[in-house]
Amino acid sequence: MARAPFVRVNFQPSGARRRVAAEDIVRTLAEEVSAGRLPRGARLPPVRALEHELGISKNTVQAAYDELCARGLLVTRERDGVFVEGAPAAEIPATRLAAPAPRFVEPNLDRQRMPEPDVLPLSMVFIDPELLPRERLAECVKSVLHIPGLHALYDAQGYPPLREVIAKRLRARGMEVGAGDVVVTTGSQQALDAVCRALPRRKLATENPVYQQAKALFETLGAELTGLRLDPFGPVPFDEWHAALAAAKPELFYTVTSFHNPTGRSYSTHELLRILELANELGFALLEDDWGSDMLSHEEYRPTLRALGGPNVTYVNSFTKKLLPSLRLGFVVGEPATVPALVAAKRVATLGNPTLIEATLCELLERGYYDTHLSAMQAELDRRYARCLGALDALMPAGVRWTSPGGGPTLWLEVPRQVSLDALSERLIARKVRIHLLPRAFHGEPHLHGFPIGFAFLPTERLVQGLEVLGEELRRLLEAA
Amino acid sequence: MARAPFVRVNFQPSGARRRVAAEDIVRTLAEEVSAGRLPRGARLPPVRALEHELGISKNTVQAAYDELCARGLLVTRERDGVFVEGAPAAEIPATRLAAPAPRFVEPNLDRQRMPEPDVLPLSMVFIDPELLPRERLAECVKSVLHIPGLHALYDAQGYPPLREVIAKRLRARGMEVGAGDVVVTTGSQQALDAVCRALPRRKLATENPVYQQAKALFETLGAELTGLRLDPFGPVPFDEWHAALAAAKPELFYTVTSFHNPTGRSYSTHELLRILELANELGFALLEDDWGSDMLSHEEYRPTLRALGGPNVTYVNSFTKKLLPSLRLGFVVGEPATVPALVAAKRVATLGNPTLIEATLCELLERGYYDTHLSAMQAELDRRYARCLGALDALMPAGVRWTSPGGGPTLWLEVPRQVSLDALSERLIARKVRIHLLPRAFHGEPHLHGFPIGFAFLPTERLVQGLEVLGEELRRLLEAA
Repeated sequence: MARAPFVRVNFQPSGARRRVAAEDIVRTLAEEVSAGRLPRGARLPPVRALEHELGISKNTVQAAYDELCARGLLVTRERDGVFVEGAPAAEIPATRLAAPAPRFVEPNLDRQRMPEPDVLPLSMVFIDPELLPRERLAECVKSVLHIPGLHALYDAQGYPPLREVIAKRLRARGMEVGAGDVVVTTGSQQALDAVCRALPRRKLATENPVYQQAKALFETLGAELTGLRLDPFGPVPFDEWHAALAAAKPELFYTVTSFHNPTGRSYSTHELLRILELANELGFALLEDDWGSDMLSHEEYRPTLRALGGPNVTYVNSFTKKLLPSLRLGFVVGEPATVPALVAAKRVATLGNPTLIEATLCELLERGYYDTHLSAMQAELDRRYARCLGALDALMPAGVRWTSPGGGPTLWLEVPRQVSLDALSERLIARKVRIHLLPRAFHGEPHLHGFPIGFAFLPTERLVQGLEVLGEELRRLLEAA
Repeated sequence: MARAPFVRVNFQPSGARRRVAAEDIVRTLAEEVSAGRLPRGARLPPVRALEHELGISKNTVQAAYDELCARGLLVTRERDGVFVEGAPAAEIPATRLAAPAPRFVEPNLDRQRMPEPDVLPLSMVFIDPELLPRERLAECVKSVLHIPGLHALYDAQGYPPLREVIAKRLRARGMEVGAGDVVVTTGSQQALDAVCRALPRRKLATENPVYQQAKALFETLGAELTGLRLDPFGPVPFDEWHAALAAAKPELFYTVTSFHNPTGRSYSTHELLRILELANELGFALLEDDWGSDMLSHEEYRPTLRALGGPNVTYVNSFTKKLLPSLRLGFVVGEPATVPALVAAKRVATLGNPTLIEATLCELLERGYYDTHLSAMQAELDRRYARCLGALDALMPAGVRWTSPGGGPTLWLEVPRQVSLDALSERLIARKVRIHLLPRAFHGEPHLHGFPIGFAFLPTERLVQGLEVLGEELRRLLEAA
């Protein structure tokens, strides 16, 4: 592209004519030049460009340019094109104007941390990529590439055969779900986004602490949030919750029912029933985030809130963690009365998501690869979880507590208040171990004093290495305190 | 899954113990049963599940269950598991409680219209799928499947090599852009979403009419919108715009600078400079949506608003229409001061998008397939555009006007006011021709009386067929009026 860019000029036919004539081009350009709207030296559209744009003949354009050259307003330079000569363009700045800067603010969440070489990530919420079915995925991608018509248009609700397979899996877990109730999303994050966008009155309750990205998401949608204190070491304080919910009158309660992020806590079945009672008494809807329930063995047979509370419970799940994070596939399940609003809310956000990815997941599920993968992975994650509990027993000083979630990728480690979490984090990073402190996951002052330990990401020897360093630094800080 | 799902119960160790003991299980379950929190007949977790979850031995769990059976609170049924016997559970409903329904509303946009068999879509904004490079895409997918580490984690800002290639292409078009300024998004829709979310004060100006999905998007984010009247047949009424902008004091003006959706209008270079002057005078930022500028030949060499106004102009573009709609790939370009807010706003919405798709596009661009495809496609679309103009000349009755955008997938057809658009649409659909009426694209009462004609989607013979039917029905309605 050695030549200068050309300016754009709009031409209209005069009178009742349907196409632009040479005299229209002459008149318009003469006016633009004499009014100073076309700067001296500006390159005009090539003859072929105007011929095409206006649907007129090359000769018409050339005749107009010739006339303007004869009038001394334009000049032709061999091979370079046609340029404005003539009156200097006093009103047009020779250099471009700088536009005002936009006044953006950053949503309230921690920046994404990319993997750091030589640093051991002890709070990682992901699963070890070595355990993920990359080869199987490649096979499925190759196979779906040949589906006719796959890449042209897309169904904003999600690839229909994938919705069918997801619905079937959920029915096997005791939920009444048809393919028409499922909306495929970019991870569970977009599912939460669609639900909140569809709410005209954005008053939400969440657990406290809460999944940080959900909190920031709801905040950027202007939601007013009420935090319900959750203690991973004790029962749900339902009297306190009742008072807070009765006062706040939320429209919806967003709850992570299994392996709550970041505490790892799961509700007992009785607690789920109490939540349903509260919802009925106080008139709020339920949004169940079930991201974790099939992440470790033995866990998927407990009834979900959706199974207990029926189709009015809006249900969110994701394949992100369990399959391949970079697939970014999740879904939200509504029922016939709510699905149109959820689909429209998703369309407003991204219109639709890549069909190729949706078809690939569908293939993976249909071939049974996903279930085979889950069983194999679960066995390994079970071993890692058991080793993690054992290492904590052996390595943590007195006064340190942790949860035993029995699944999910993380547990919550609670340390004595006299240990400064910031000091601990600094000492650990000096020893190449990273923990994630999550002050932004709390509503106000954190009532817990700890952080997650991710037992699914690191091979056991590395995990134990990290816990050894953690134990040593905790002991030092406790002795110094 | 023939067996009943089991309930979940949470256990905590008592005293200073770190693991749950048999007596903790006995105490907790006895309390739960006698308080009616575990209903008669409920299936308890299998021994192996508790063994795993709590990190204790099988014998410990078994001993606890044996004790509870001896007390008559539990009962073991061969092969089925351990169940609650004992006191009836008066407080627990035998059937599940129905949760309250969520009160969603549907965002204000037309529902997605899936292709209808035998109906000729005359307003289609997409490109004919037959012209899209499906085979090339398949080759690139296969090749990137082998990139090590591709599927594990993802960069929320977008696959770095893709951002590099995009920046290089934009620099070739006169824009100062580095890879760090580019944020990859799910189509241009997510780019608009990220920009609006990053704005704490959501007061926006848009053209009137405006791309319908953008309007609905901004509305669900609570934005207050000012519409600036755009006439595809005349110059921009800058005095009117100045007054409206000075009164509304928007934070940002969202503008589609080439092949405006839905009118097909492009700004002249002088008009772009006037917009920059207005922005400077009145202090609003600029968001340029350049979705269409490389959709037809001769069009990409005109300076964009970003090229004229510098890096403060936030710039959005997409590969959706030009490559394959189902890829859903777009991007937003900021500058170092604005990019962190845009990345965070994107993360809040979807965390990140599928790396596989981003890597595939990168490969397609790097191999030069995209440019080869564009040239071939542009030649065909140029032919279709020229034939469309010719057919309109031949087939439209007097009083009907249309724009000659010179590019993009659609032009605007304006019909005399005495023709009812709804009546026209009904007559056309009776003859298996669909046009899209866009009342929701306007702010208030539409000042135009027409609809888009999509000349890029239909093969020429089909397009002419559709225009013949349109011309006939228009004549009938004009004669009847």
